[in-house]
Amino acid sequence: MPTDHATDRNAFEDDAREAVYRAIFGRRDVRSHFVPGAIDDAVLARLLLAAHHAPSVGYMQPWDFVVIRDAARRQKVRDLFLAARQQELPLMADDRQALYRMLKLEGICESALNLCVTCDRRRAENAPLGRSRNPDMDLFSTVCAVQNFWLAARAEGIGVGWVSIFDTPALKALLKIPDHIVPVAYLCVGKVLEFAPRPDLEARGWGQRLPLASLIMSEVFGGEGEVSLKQAVEATMPE
Amino acid sequence: MPTDHATDRNAFEDDAREAVYRAIFGRRDVRSHFVPGAIDDAVLARLLLAAHHAPSVGYMQPWDFVVIRDAARRQKVRDLFLAARQQELPLMADDRQALYRMLKLEGICESALNLCVTCDRRRAENAPLGRSRNPDMDLFSTVCAVQNFWLAARAEGIGVGWVSIFDTPALKALLKIPDHIVPVAYLCVGKVLEFAPRPDLEARGWGQRLPLASLIMSEVFGGEGEVSLKQAVEATMPE
Repeated sequence: MPTDHATDRNAFEDDAREAVYRAIFGRRDVRSHFVPGAIDDAVLARLLLAAHHAPSVGYMQPWDFVVIRDAARRQKVRDLFLAARQQELPLMADDRQALYRMLKLEGICESALNLCVTCDRRRAENAPLGRSRNPDMDLFSTVCAVQNFWLAARAEGIGVGWVSIFDTPALKALLKIPDHIVPVAYLCVGKVLEFAPRPDLEARGWGQRLPLASLIMSEVFGGEGEVSLKQAVEATMPE
Repeated sequence: MPTDHATDRNAFEDDAREAVYRAIFGRRDVRSHFVPGAIDDAVLARLLLAAHHAPSVGYMQPWDFVVIRDAARRQKVRDLFLAARQQELPLMADDRQALYRMLKLEGICESALNLCVTCDRRRAENAPLGRSRNPDMDLFSTVCAVQNFWLAARAEGIGVGWVSIFDTPALKALLKIPDHIVPVAYLCVGKVLEFAPRPDLEARGWGQRLPLASLIMSEVFGGEGEVSLKQAVEATMPE
């Protein structure tokens, strides 16, 4: 498929390239499929190393990783989730509330461990390269670390679910997170029965995957998009 | 390496797992190594499909992708970068300014194309699942799409660099981005001479990779961290 030497030399062989896409297309936000079983330290170490190799603005590496295993603490975190879920429910359109109530949205207690990935906003205060004009860039770098962790976990057969339904100040108090540190992601991590063929929210009828071609524009926002690229997108399906 | 059946069944074979780590550890923020050469539509389509398979809060898929090729427009984008860089320079510590001036921080004009990945904050207004308590979650989902694109590009032998040194309102005006849309990432995308063995900012002495074990905590922020996990981290190096 590569068409010239510059690409040939730097591209992965076909099998390796397919493996990367397999992780990307097969990754799931796991809530329902956790099964008992500890994660080996060696596996968790590789996942954290993958996270640590994310890009970061100005090479600031603003992340920390808090591993949470204690059952009582996790129960308190889950209580925060349940309270926030109750507050979120009335914000859903009327015809969505019944479905919302039925959705399983976290695996806090039944996963092998929880991981809070945080962002230290002061880590490179004296050299804010790339961040002075876009102060959120350190948060975005931390999200890149989360996505690396998630994809590596898929390859290791480990499920990850990101829970965002929390009151942040309450979560910070529970985990003793200082003011200048932001809890970017609260992850449930564990072995799984399976990786579902489709995202849960699609399978449950909450939403459908948008047609990608409709999201591609050219030159400016709203620009029509290139016909040949849109055709190529329509011809390309996840393997 | 897998130690029980649940992991065995869901983990990739060793070669495929290694390929995922190879993309993660070998990905670079490319600024200096772009070479001429168009990207095939089929390749770009796969990268966009990878981005589109990112996780998104409440399955909202808030992203759009603006492909920018026009040389005159790119020159104007680069002018915005140059202006923002001048404004950013005095914020660096005195002993960093000379080095900052020497760093190449973008490949806007010499890459094959630019890609602005945006976030539509209104896309799922009537069903803000997972976003009511953490309003930035839609931006974070968009960052996950960027990281998927970046890793898929590494596997395809395509370099990607994220430029964040812009005045956002000026960039929005130039790309005709409506108020409720946020330009999350401005990417330079193209063929490369090579993927450097180390991040540019490390090779140029701007920063060093932090020791991962020092970033791992247990139970609460600042919690000591598990000895066996830290030992496993220290025994694990990128392949």
